[in-house]
Amino acid sequence: MKIIRSLTAMTAWSEQLKREGVRIGFAPTMGALHDGHRALIRAARLQCDALVVSIFVNPTQFGPNEDLAKYPRPLSQDRAICKKEGVDVCFEPTVKAMYPSGFQALVALPAIARRWEGEVRPHHFSGVATVVTKLFGIVRPQIALFGQKDFQQSALVRQLVKDLNLGVEIVVHPTVREADGLARSSRNIYLSPDDRIRAATLYKSLQTGAEAIRRGVTDGVSIQKTMLQAIRGEPAMTIDYLSVCDPSTLEPLFSVRSRVVLLGAVRLGSVRLIDNLLVTTPRRVT
Amino acid sequence: MKIIRSLTAMTAWSEQLKREGVRIGFAPTMGALHDGHRALIRAARLQCDALVVSIFVNPTQFGPNEDLAKYPRPLSQDRAICKKEGVDVCFEPTVKAMYPSGFQALVALPAIARRWEGEVRPHHFSGVATVVTKLFGIVRPQIALFGQKDFQQSALVRQLVKDLNLGVEIVVHPTVREADGLARSSRNIYLSPDDRIRAATLYKSLQTGAEAIRRGVTDGVSIQKTMLQAIRGEPAMTIDYLSVCDPSTLEPLFSVRSRVVLLGAVRLGSVRLIDNLLVTTPRRVT
Repeated sequence: MKIIRSLTAMTAWSEQLKREGVRIGFAPTMGALHDGHRALIRAARLQCDALVVSIFVNPTQFGPNEDLAKYPRPLSQDRAICKKEGVDVCFEPTVKAMYPSGFQALVALPAIARRWEGEVRPHHFSGVATVVTKLFGIVRPQIALFGQKDFQQSALVRQLVKDLNLGVEIVVHPTVREADGLARSSRNIYLSPDDRIRAATLYKSLQTGAEAIRRGVTDGVSIQKTMLQAIRGEPAMTIDYLSVCDPSTLEPLFSVRSRVVLLGAVRLGSVRLIDNLLVTTPRRVT
Repeated sequence: MKIIRSLTAMTAWSEQLKREGVRIGFAPTMGALHDGHRALIRAARLQCDALVVSIFVNPTQFGPNEDLAKYPRPLSQDRAICKKEGVDVCFEPTVKAMYPSGFQALVALPAIARRWEGEVRPHHFSGVATVVTKLFGIVRPQIALFGQKDFQQSALVRQLVKDLNLGVEIVVHPTVREADGLARSSRNIYLSPDDRIRAATLYKSLQTGAEAIRRGVTDGVSIQKTMLQAIRGEPAMTIDYLSVCDPSTLEPLFSVRSRVVLLGAVRLGSVRLIDNLLVTTPRRVT
């Protein structure tokens, strides 16, 4: 496995292979790789000839009171995982190379970024859209994979690629979960042992919503209430939002038709957890 | 010469040629091609193997009170010029294909866009940055040419490519002028015969500034005063700005060192004219 830190070396590597007809896959990460990343990397391997994984803790997507400084950075462990999973290039740009003096560009998708995570984290999604545009420009992949756990991010990236004609195929990889249903996340290590046990309640809440839809409930507010009730049994958990949305626009749905996404975000102490479920409504006999 | 209207057909054409090692040049235009464009296209021809010229009157870079509706669109004449100059593809996307329903992406370069044209035209440069990012994504050229007449635009595009790692070489082509010095522009046709004669005063004003610099004047405010005086002799002309700036950041310079750009914008009746001169300060014997 090659480790590349230089932006121009990364582009040169990709361009060289593309001239030879090689299909390049790309999985952008912030490192601290867990089983969710591992599954995503394995899925990526099957869809390309050469695979690039980037490890870059992007400062512009963190808010001023967020965990940028203490975000886990187990680099040698991450490299070992990449190597074991058959990654061809581990791309590790520096913050200075990505954001040199004079840097000012900003890519925004105001409609998708407005609600949910965007409301709690005001500049988060323009940070994401900008760094993804940059990484695509440097790595130049044919296909890129994102985790479904960050659902709003994956919807944003799809819209970004469409709107700016970036010409990269986007694949969203299903969330990998612990035995009790908790979505794998690099931030789960922040949970105290007690909160770790409580954390699965978020997934259980989303499941009650999904079950209601499968039972035929179509009223968005009723589905939301069902999910809220499931969390109220866990007083240590504070709800940021629980919503029933259109999977493309992320607008809340008052009446459920075809595919919906159930989005949830909660707090346990100082730790924030997000999760989601994509649900296809049952076919009706007409 | 091929005429392509479909975005995907445009990308496919470029990708096919690039696989064969062809170097693709690109000149984005809004049509209404004049001798300035012609010179730029000829220069482009010499720097690439296959040349794409886009003709697209981009609505998002016009303000609500600007001339979008009446902007000249002599399409068959434009095509004839492209054909004569050896253009390989005339790319003519529709507004609907470029901005389909749900489109929302916005690319901004706030520091470069803040002053001068950006102050008079608040959303102009984010419209330009967004459409250029899109066109580069669709056409995928190795090199792209812009006219120096829109100096701030060319500085913005350079910064855009650098910041978003778009990997396109940017060449800025010198302004082509009428016999009396007036910069060629698609909007010159709006000038009344009297105003057409007056219009050359803007260029003459910039020249007095350049002469002052060549004589050794280094004080930005003095240079600006010299330029202002040259225009005050033409009472029909209203000054929007006349400035002495750093050519990369477009920040005004109070003390002139090495290269500077003199920027000017004036109004004659309802017509707005812009022009600029790049000046290298004289070497001093030390």
